[in-house]
Amino acid sequence: MRSLALIGLGLIGGSVARAARERSLVETIRAHDPDAVQTAAGRELGFVDTVCDSIAEAVRDAELVLVAVPVAESAEVIRAVLAAAPAATITDVGSTKGSVLRDIRATLGRVPTGFVPGHPIAGTERSGAVHADAGLFDGRRVILTPLDDTDADARERVTAFWRALGAQVVCMDAERHDRVLGATSHLPHLLAYALVDQLATLDAREEIFAFAAGGFRDFTRIASSSPRMWHDIARANREALIGLIDGFGGQLDALRTALRDDDGEALMACFERARSARARYLDLIESPAETSP
Amino acid sequence: MRSLALIGLGLIGGSVARAARERSLVETIRAHDPDAVQTAAGRELGFVDTVCDSIAEAVRDAELVLVAVPVAESAEVIRAVLAAAPAATITDVGSTKGSVLRDIRATLGRVPTGFVPGHPIAGTERSGAVHADAGLFDGRRVILTPLDDTDADARERVTAFWRALGAQVVCMDAERHDRVLGATSHLPHLLAYALVDQLATLDAREEIFAFAAGGFRDFTRIASSSPRMWHDIARANREALIGLIDGFGGQLDALRTALRDDDGEALMACFERARSARARYLDLIESPAETSP
Repeated sequence: MRSLALIGLGLIGGSVARAARERSLVETIRAHDPDAVQTAAGRELGFVDTVCDSIAEAVRDAELVLVAVPVAESAEVIRAVLAAAPAATITDVGSTKGSVLRDIRATLGRVPTGFVPGHPIAGTERSGAVHADAGLFDGRRVILTPLDDTDADARERVTAFWRALGAQVVCMDAERHDRVLGATSHLPHLLAYALVDQLATLDAREEIFAFAAGGFRDFTRIASSSPRMWHDIARANREALIGLIDGFGGQLDALRTALRDDDGEALMACFERARSARARYLDLIESPAETSP
Repeated sequence: MRSLALIGLGLIGGSVARAARERSLVETIRAHDPDAVQTAAGRELGFVDTVCDSIAEAVRDAELVLVAVPVAESAEVIRAVLAAAPAATITDVGSTKGSVLRDIRATLGRVPTGFVPGHPIAGTERSGAVHADAGLFDGRRVILTPLDDTDADARERVTAFWRALGAQVVCMDAERHDRVLGATSHLPHLLAYALVDQLATLDAREEIFAFAAGGFRDFTRIASSSPRMWHDIARANREALIGLIDGFGGQLDALRTALRDDDGEALMACFERARSARARYLDLIESPAETSP
């Protein structure tokens, strides 16, 4: 590929640039980010050729434009991209897909055929270009949620790009994406934030945190993720999330009732089901190639 | 030390034996476990000298008896230990302390002065002697919850033993222990089990688990822990747990309301508080030596 434009140089945008550079996939990488800290990191770490002051400057002549900004800003950014490069192939990395498509329709009246909605299932609790990792997408999945009239060449270009970064590309519709990611990513983030926030209000909080072991550290790692980003995601997928919270509340009520009634069988049944399901899940992710691309 | 007796050769008992052996802390290690799989592993891996058919045989002449059985069985085991070795120093590793003391009082009428209740804050989601790890307690905390009349020599012997395994020993009362561990260990385990069980009932479960990323894997790791062990712990600490579940339910309700009302400020405030608290917690565990022993 001759030229890639990156709008947004956070952890994901930075990692895409870094991976594309290390694999020599692109001749020129131009980037725009309103945050000077991110662009400075991109320049310093050497994975961006040109830092541009505007979106228009960054996307001019780009074969592929990757939008890696908070989901709430995606539609406005895509409008600016199209104004400067009407024929560009554009993809994004937003953690919610329904809201991005809704916002684009509200902003532009229609979803441009050159836009291929995407979401790499990869990330860490860290933010910013300084944590960019060239191996972040290696062996991971990228979900694309193209529409019926999405341009076939654009879809092919985006698919080939992610594959070249080592990822496995899977397609599904946006609504299904949001339901699935709501369950495995958005709800767990909310639960982790809720738990840490709860414990932080207890009188014994200092010693509670002091005596937390590795299990707690793993369980709450995602509560160190960017509040701004997760605020955007939670609001963008709030309908699915409210349903999931209600389902989780029902589970928790059942466990509370079992504890109140000292109902050991109910506790055992829940714990056994969960352990079996997780074992199956682990088996599944140990053979990811079986999933249809 | 001349002789150590281990009652229960699971992950914790096995790791104690292995660590004591590697550090040459004990001349003879005798062990009893009704589960032949565990004793076979202990014998095969070479960290037990003598596998005994009964508790009485194992504890005879032992300077220290370590009881590493499910919390629900502790009192009966301690009764059998005392019957064969009335003057022994005994400690346990149970994840709940109030229930163990209650059960002992119910079984024996009083808590023996030679019994020093303990709990190493260490473990993994794996079970069994085959996963025994000589480094499991290195740099970790062990909480002892002695009573006012606990024998001072026994307490000193148990403290010295854990220190020799690389652990840092901290004392607190049993009720405080159960409150603190309920918050950082028991409640998170319940939440993880509840979440995995919830998702396993959804129609889209196959693809939900297939698209789970590293965050989900970390978040739910503890849901692979032994259901039997966590059933015992949940029941043993159910009063504290019910209060914690109610507190968590309140947090979750507040997040649900914020989502329903599209109240971005409330979401941001919760997520920010949680991230700050976790940052403080991480700082704390990076300097564990500051906590008073």
